[in-house]
Amino acid sequence: MLTLDKIYSASYKLKEILRETPMVHAPDLNPDCDIFLKPENLQVTGSFKVRGAYYKLSQLTEEEKKRGVIACSAGNHAQGVALAATKNGIKSLICLPDSAPISKVQATRKYGADICLVDGVYDDAYNRAIELRDREGYTFIHPFDDENVIAGQGTIGLEILNEHPEIDAIVVPVGGGGLISGVAFAAKSLKPDIKVYGVQAKGAPSMKNALEHGRIEMLDSVATIADGIAVKEPGEHTFEYCTKYVDEIVTVSDDEISSAILALIEQQKMIAEGAGAVSVAAVMFNKIPVKGKKVACLVSGGNIDVTILSRVIKRGLLKSGRTCNLNIELIDKPGQLQGVAEILARLGGNVISIHHERANEGADVVGCCLRIVLETKNYEHIEQIKQALKDAGYHLLSTY
Amino acid sequence: MLTLDKIYSASYKLKEILRETPMVHAPDLNPDCDIFLKPENLQVTGSFKVRGAYYKLSQLTEEEKKRGVIACSAGNHAQGVALAATKNGIKSLICLPDSAPISKVQATRKYGADICLVDGVYDDAYNRAIELRDREGYTFIHPFDDENVIAGQGTIGLEILNEHPEIDAIVVPVGGGGLISGVAFAAKSLKPDIKVYGVQAKGAPSMKNALEHGRIEMLDSVATIADGIAVKEPGEHTFEYCTKYVDEIVTVSDDEISSAILALIEQQKMIAEGAGAVSVAAVMFNKIPVKGKKVACLVSGGNIDVTILSRVIKRGLLKSGRTCNLNIELIDKPGQLQGVAEILARLGGNVISIHHERANEGADVVGCCLRIVLETKNYEHIEQIKQALKDAGYHLLSTY
Repeated sequence: MLTLDKIYSASYKLKEILRETPMVHAPDLNPDCDIFLKPENLQVTGSFKVRGAYYKLSQLTEEEKKRGVIACSAGNHAQGVALAATKNGIKSLICLPDSAPISKVQATRKYGADICLVDGVYDDAYNRAIELRDREGYTFIHPFDDENVIAGQGTIGLEILNEHPEIDAIVVPVGGGGLISGVAFAAKSLKPDIKVYGVQAKGAPSMKNALEHGRIEMLDSVATIADGIAVKEPGEHTFEYCTKYVDEIVTVSDDEISSAILALIEQQKMIAEGAGAVSVAAVMFNKIPVKGKKVACLVSGGNIDVTILSRVIKRGLLKSGRTCNLNIELIDKPGQLQGVAEILARLGGNVISIHHERANEGADVVGCCLRIVLETKNYEHIEQIKQALKDAGYHLLSTY
Repeated sequence: MLTLDKIYSASYKLKEILRETPMVHAPDLNPDCDIFLKPENLQVTGSFKVRGAYYKLSQLTEEEKKRGVIACSAGNHAQGVALAATKNGIKSLICLPDSAPISKVQATRKYGADICLVDGVYDDAYNRAIELRDREGYTFIHPFDDENVIAGQGTIGLEILNEHPEIDAIVVPVGGGGLISGVAFAAKSLKPDIKVYGVQAKGAPSMKNALEHGRIEMLDSVATIADGIAVKEPGEHTFEYCTKYVDEIVTVSDDEISSAILALIEQQKMIAEGAGAVSVAAVMFNKIPVKGKKVACLVSGGNIDVTILSRVIKRGLLKSGRTCNLNIELIDKPGQLQGVAEILARLGGNVISIHHERANEGADVVGCCLRIVLETKNYEHIEQIKQALKDAGYHLLSTY
């Protein structure tokens, strides 16, 4: 059974490996409340998962340790278990679907785990892990539905209240529910009137549904850039803890998550992964009743694939008017391109790419179409450029 | 005159506003030495500059404070002075060239400064600031060549040795030289045998040249993505301190800086600006004799424009084989595109964009050219895709 004592001893045990993650004041994320970030993206392995994994492994019997541990994960749990096992001198085997990003496979191997790549998706890797557990005697380390794992994650609740006892609410990302179970239990045990809110991705609202319907259901599919919390089914233990200790679970869209990631980059110089940024997204976009309150947002991890990061930034630049795509119809005669180029140069629009095409379906038979991607300063700047083009007689087909 | 006493009092004074920036162990950046980062990119205002500015302003006379301060900067110094002035109840006016990124102008204004946008480049803004100082009586706050400013920056040297007294060497970004002057003075006063290395951008080696030639020279031009250290001429005081206390200054290329920025994102989940990452680049690419040593890399700032960040990431993806551009020559008949698409889908190459062009100069008259941008896993994956295309009879014009 989970007790505050257990979380305190986890906290003591974890001193052996944790990096301190002091909270960061981030008032600009939403002027209507006073936000502090708990940056577990800066934790060793790039996420909080190492807490639960390390404490869990420290509690195994000598016999269990000798047989080694096995886990199934394409992400943060894999790296947490790998590091925790290596530090404890335990053999670890991690099953990953072979579709997992190469960067995550490499990181897990780097922490000392053996890797078993399994054809297919997460479920296939999970089945293989269970099969290997049964055949080879490994101890299976569940990513969330385990009371020692939950106790490890709960240490974050202690740290938040230790550093800022005056906090009114804690906002926590929710996948399987291990993190919020531990944090909510710890925080409410110490300060019963504190609020604890969970945040899930719109495309993977498994715990939210479970709380609303009063029972665990399995989602048919999940779809979100927050892959770390794309969980189809909450755990049994975690469902119980959430029912008891969590005030509300809300959801955020992928666009909102992208904006939160970009805000953390620009304002706090830190990288969060999608799952790590949902708490910030929920507060930025007023999904939670925390107006005038002191709020701790748990940024749970930073292991985002650079390809995804690049897309998030690109989308953010478009949304904030710092990139702009123009389609201009030209009459097919010399000098037209020069005219456009002169206007862009004069107004400081920085060309990223130009495509000049004849007989585009949107254009006249005698015309052609110029597609331009520009770096711009803001929306005002875009409007200024568009107006100058129109004033010079150019026909803009579309802008987006 | 600079004294250790002065740096200690700056350190005490700065407690009023500084965020603690505990050092981060980053062994993966170079396996040949033991690296600790001093992450001043996580400092308030996103850079160390607030230290020098705040201490300098605290030392002004009441009369000087009443008249207000003026500074000229398109970057971190502007934000440092603005915040320091506001916290001290002093009026501040910052002159910026109107070519400055809008994000930096907004950040400076947010910290409470009045903004004076000047037509032209940095030199024009500087001249305006001097003119306003003379006409209106403002106190001019120099970005680096001032002993109180240098004392403020030197507090970083105290913090590094306080946290890790066993450090063998400190690596510091160098622009005008204020930061390294303070850090080298403080560190060598406490620990005379510590090494202090400076790093400049290849396109702006002003202090390196000055040390090599034994005198200050003005560079004709500077060109680097590390805009924060693109300084044409070092200061007189800072030149003296560097001559006396700095062991060597090395340079790094923009490509090396980009790789360092990307490594900090992937491994440490933190954003550094170009100027902030040169120290990491120098150690990553073995520019400094620190094999087997314990090294502190000062990451001086994180205020990178998102547009630049996006380019750095794009370049990093290309360089690490996670994006690939293919040019394929097709015979101009139906079914060709489908064949290519089938191969890409089967091998898991994720299409970002496709351009299909007829009568490209590189292609046959009856042929056409297909230009594809792909997301790939690594170089091996790219080779696999290229081989499959060749095996199917497609002619690859170029890949880059």
